[in-house]
Amino acid sequence: MGIRVGALQLVRYSLRKRRLAPLVLCFLLIAAMAAQAQPDPLPSWNEGPAKQAILAFVQATTDASNPGYVPPEARIATFDQDGTTWVEQPMYTPMLYCLARLRALAQAKPELADTEPFKSVLSGSVEHLGNVPMSDIEKVYAATMTGMPVEELGDQVRQWLGTARDVRWHRPYTDLVYQPMLEVMQLLRTKGYKTYFVTGGGQDFLRAYAEKIYGIPPEQVVGTLNATKFSYDADGKPILTEEPRLLLNNVGPGKPEGIQLMIGRYPQAAFGNSDGDKEMLEYTQAGGGTRLMMLVHHDDAAREYAYGAQSKVGTFPDSLMEEAVQKGWVVISMKKDWKRIFFWE
Amino acid sequence: MGIRVGALQLVRYSLRKRRLAPLVLCFLLIAAMAAQAQPDPLPSWNEGPAKQAILAFVQATTDASNPGYVPPEARIATFDQDGTTWVEQPMYTPMLYCLARLRALAQAKPELADTEPFKSVLSGSVEHLGNVPMSDIEKVYAATMTGMPVEELGDQVRQWLGTARDVRWHRPYTDLVYQPMLEVMQLLRTKGYKTYFVTGGGQDFLRAYAEKIYGIPPEQVVGTLNATKFSYDADGKPILTEEPRLLLNNVGPGKPEGIQLMIGRYPQAAFGNSDGDKEMLEYTQAGGGTRLMMLVHHDDAAREYAYGAQSKVGTFPDSLMEEAVQKGWVVISMKKDWKRIFFWE
Repeated sequence: MGIRVGALQLVRYSLRKRRLAPLVLCFLLIAAMAAQAQPDPLPSWNEGPAKQAILAFVQATTDASNPGYVPPEARIATFDQDGTTWVEQPMYTPMLYCLARLRALAQAKPELADTEPFKSVLSGSVEHLGNVPMSDIEKVYAATMTGMPVEELGDQVRQWLGTARDVRWHRPYTDLVYQPMLEVMQLLRTKGYKTYFVTGGGQDFLRAYAEKIYGIPPEQVVGTLNATKFSYDADGKPILTEEPRLLLNNVGPGKPEGIQLMIGRYPQAAFGNSDGDKEMLEYTQAGGGTRLMMLVHHDDAAREYAYGAQSKVGTFPDSLMEEAVQKGWVVISMKKDWKRIFFWE
Repeated sequence: MGIRVGALQLVRYSLRKRRLAPLVLCFLLIAAMAAQAQPDPLPSWNEGPAKQAILAFVQATTDASNPGYVPPEARIATFDQDGTTWVEQPMYTPMLYCLARLRALAQAKPELADTEPFKSVLSGSVEHLGNVPMSDIEKVYAATMTGMPVEELGDQVRQWLGTARDVRWHRPYTDLVYQPMLEVMQLLRTKGYKTYFVTGGGQDFLRAYAEKIYGIPPEQVVGTLNATKFSYDADGKPILTEEPRLLLNNVGPGKPEGIQLMIGRYPQAAFGNSDGDKEMLEYTQAGGGTRLMMLVHHDDAAREYAYGAQSKVGTFPDSLMEEAVQKGWVVISMKKDWKRIFFWE
């Protein structure tokens, strides 16, 4: 306030002594910048060790005079999606998409509903998907997300996201994004970081909405990877078709492998929420120097969900909590650290 | 010069009339900018249709008032390496590395030199490598570029590049980079383009030097891709090991597939030099709108090499030239379009 009053007096003075106008303009500019400076970049976070860790990391790695300084080209931050940047209960959203798609296909081709493993998958509950073996998941993936041109898959995903609603809040899945994590992504980007998804969902599933919803462009989406096949359509136009050939299962040890394939550097910061993110955080820390490893802990049954050690979806075993404590990874308590979870709250 | 003389007069005037100082400073700044404006961004290119095509493309896609304008996030340019951004005769440099490495391994383990396909590869001439079937190339690749931690491969490649010399100019291979193409990359980056390698060499081979030599960071290198394997070393530290498992042969139809995997968008511009780049150029053009497709044509035996239709290395069949003419791709004549080929000329 002192600055503003001083500025007003100077403006009044300058109206009498016109030759000082450039000086006054300069002063006003500085005053305006000072008055606006430092809005909280993480308004949905409560004060506490988690928020402090993020701010300290950003400060250390982007201040050229700090010993933890990181040059712009090495500023890479990786985010798991399900359970880290949006809700994953009662089932991972990419799996819910496969299931919805399988139901639609079974309506068009009833014989599909009588064939295993589709029969079991279609007859079981959504939670039951957590028990389906990986080999069967791959068959469901192949049946629902391959065989079409890559653009068509993107259209199908966006169409589903536009109409599907979750079971608890009856909202589009893209409304179930964690506002505090969007703020972290935005803060990091403001400071020259490239933000990547490194997550178990299909790469082209995420690409259908990642740029619009999260500000993450297609080239920064590392998901479970399948091959595509180049060919020509009837008019001789080049097309790429989604192939039922798995290149990389981007979960657990697959995450550092996916990071090597698509990024080729150690991340400077990594965010996860389950034992599927363990290796990504270990690998990030192995890069040495100033690194930030964070785990979202779901401990808020009232506002979201409380789960972890016993859950098949987003498993957070006690051993992971022990490793986090031992290695200095920062555990985010949704209950304590997040002032707001969703933008619409 | 008129601007500079005028500025000097104004400075002299301002020394007498001190109150005009801010105005003079402002004027000097504008004069300095005008004097420096528009240095030729492509000084190693002769005036002609190829240079004109590049400048027109950059102007159209980066001027917001132009109907061909492309938003910054879609500004992606892809470059083949061998024969497009550096010399590929008498043999692709990544292959020469494998051969040198195989020789070193055979010295350490003489039984390797008696095992096929290594025996034939080691006994043949360098040019003979052009006849080796792909399945044998994969075995050589597996023997020389896998089994070690990813960092170790990078170190080995850099060590070789530091000592190996090419047969004609007796210079490091990194001296055989085409200066005109470096200028194109730099111009595109200045205008907000992300420049990518999309090339047949091994991804981690290129990453060992691409940032230093070309300004292309690891995450923008799309090469022939092999898997890595996550594990822990004896001290429990996470490591990634190069695996002998091919994920993508990034040549011909593999190039659009590699682009989809690592970028997930149509390139806005693509640069190649042989039939191995045909599908990349076709795919780029299929994106529609303002796209630039260019082919380097090696027609300068005096300053570099003249080859194409008959060569096994960098094959440029007549059908490719016909397709280029028919589809409006721009063919760069090294002889006519490049004023200078290497920085040391």
